Amino acid sequence: MNSAIIVAAGKGTRMGPNVDKLFLEVAGRPVVAHTWQRFNDAKCITEIVIVVRDGRQSAFVELATRYNLTKAHRFVAGGVERQDSVWNGLEALSPGAEIVAIQDAARPATSEALVAATIAAARETGAAVAARVVTDTIKESADGKLITRTVDRSRLWSVQTPQTFRVEVIRRALGEVRRRGLLVTDDTAACELIGQPVQLVAAVEPNPKVTVPGDLAYIETLLRQPQP
Amino acid sequence: MNSAIIVAAGKGTRMGPNVDKLFLEVAGRPVVAHTWQRFNDAKCITEIVIVVRDGRQSAFVELATRYNLTKAHRFVAGGVERQDSVWNGLEALSPGAEIVAIQDAARPATSEALVAATIAAARETGAAVAARVVTDTIKESADGKLITRTVDRSRLWSVQTPQTFRVEVIRRALGEVRRRGLLVTDDTAACELIGQPVQLVAAVEPNPKVTVPGDLAYIETLLRQPQP
Repeated sequence: MNSAIIVAAGKGTRMGPNVDKLFLEVAGRPVVAHTWQRFNDAKCITEIVIVVRDGRQSAFVELATRYNLTKAHRFVAGGVERQDSVWNGLEALSPGAEIVAIQDAARPATSEALVAATIAAARETGAAVAARVVTDTIKESADGKLITRTVDRSRLWSVQTPQTFRVEVIRRALGEVRRRGLLVTDDTAACELIGQPVQLVAAVEPNPKVTVPGDLAYIETLLRQPQP
Repeated sequence: MNSAIIVAAGKGTRMGPNVDKLFLEVAGRPVVAHTWQRFNDAKCITEIVIVVRDGRQSAFVELATRYNLTKAHRFVAGGVERQDSVWNGLEALSPGAEIVAIQDAARPATSEALVAATIAAARETGAAVAARVVTDTIKESADGKLITRTVDRSRLWSVQTPQTFRVEVIRRALGEVRRRGLLVTDDTAACELIGQPVQLVAAVEPNPKVTVPGDLAYIETLLRQPQP
């Protein structure tokens, strides 16, 4: 059985103070309602765990009603760091969950095909992540003012979500992170720690994250396009 | 005096075979006509050299008429590599040119404020480039299939255009590249070769490049927004 965890507990300060970016309206509904809808409609997903900030659960219950999001779902409270929120999500999975796709709530345009591709890869190798080759020229700067060197971009990938795992693999990886008291940038970094290889799954369609206000116009355009 | 070189001689194969991405219509006119218009209207720019592919000059002459692009401009033919095209552009500058802003023709949303900021920085230090801090999580992969390691993104910048220089600096830098028979990814990499520091100028507004078909909807949205 394949489960999804939608991580919706972050604060996301780059959107401005007191702005909950997950509830910004884009293409007619809040950002997080798009994300949830995609996983609600995805045939490859059986249940959804949504990790929310304390006190925000009622707003999510309302979304389920308003947008008819009827696939089996439950809510858990987020932790201090993103990795704690994911951990809480893992604790809330059904006992039958074999594969889990972990999704940023702020990534509302993820396609079902991409979710399914990461599930197939994770079933085979244990861990997989949606990613895109870096096409920009990348420079390194030690001080943020002068270029220190040109980075060889031919080996670089920009990673997205879903980040998808066999449930026992990500439990073991994040368990190790917690035991050692580490902070990881994303769930695949936890896998690196236990020597678990992570497979890259090339995202063909754009799969952007809402980060700064300038992202919204683009994402609006994307979400209004008909889905395949 | 500040000049601009618009590099419009590339083939850009990622858009599909036999597609000249510079002449794709977006927001009511060809991509390159937007780029040219921005430099035509920029008060900080006195003359424009446009580097075109052999045989394409008449299409550009037509653009000038159709969109009333009346600022002093001339055309030169491109070379085999991008760096050869830039070299040809440098050869065509007026003798009075002190600063040159080198621009990808496929970057149609560059703001006048950004051009002016790179000019001011280049005047001070010799070389400057529009850039954006990398906000995505970046992974390295040796084979394009498995993640090899997580890259520390805190020092990484994605560079754009304009790349702007004192004319004598970029002449010396690219001259060295040519003498040594090297191939560089961009004009600032040539500066690294002669020990010329390059200053990063943070691009506040989005400044995307048309690369793949999926970019067009976003760029359409951007170009239809009123300019400040």
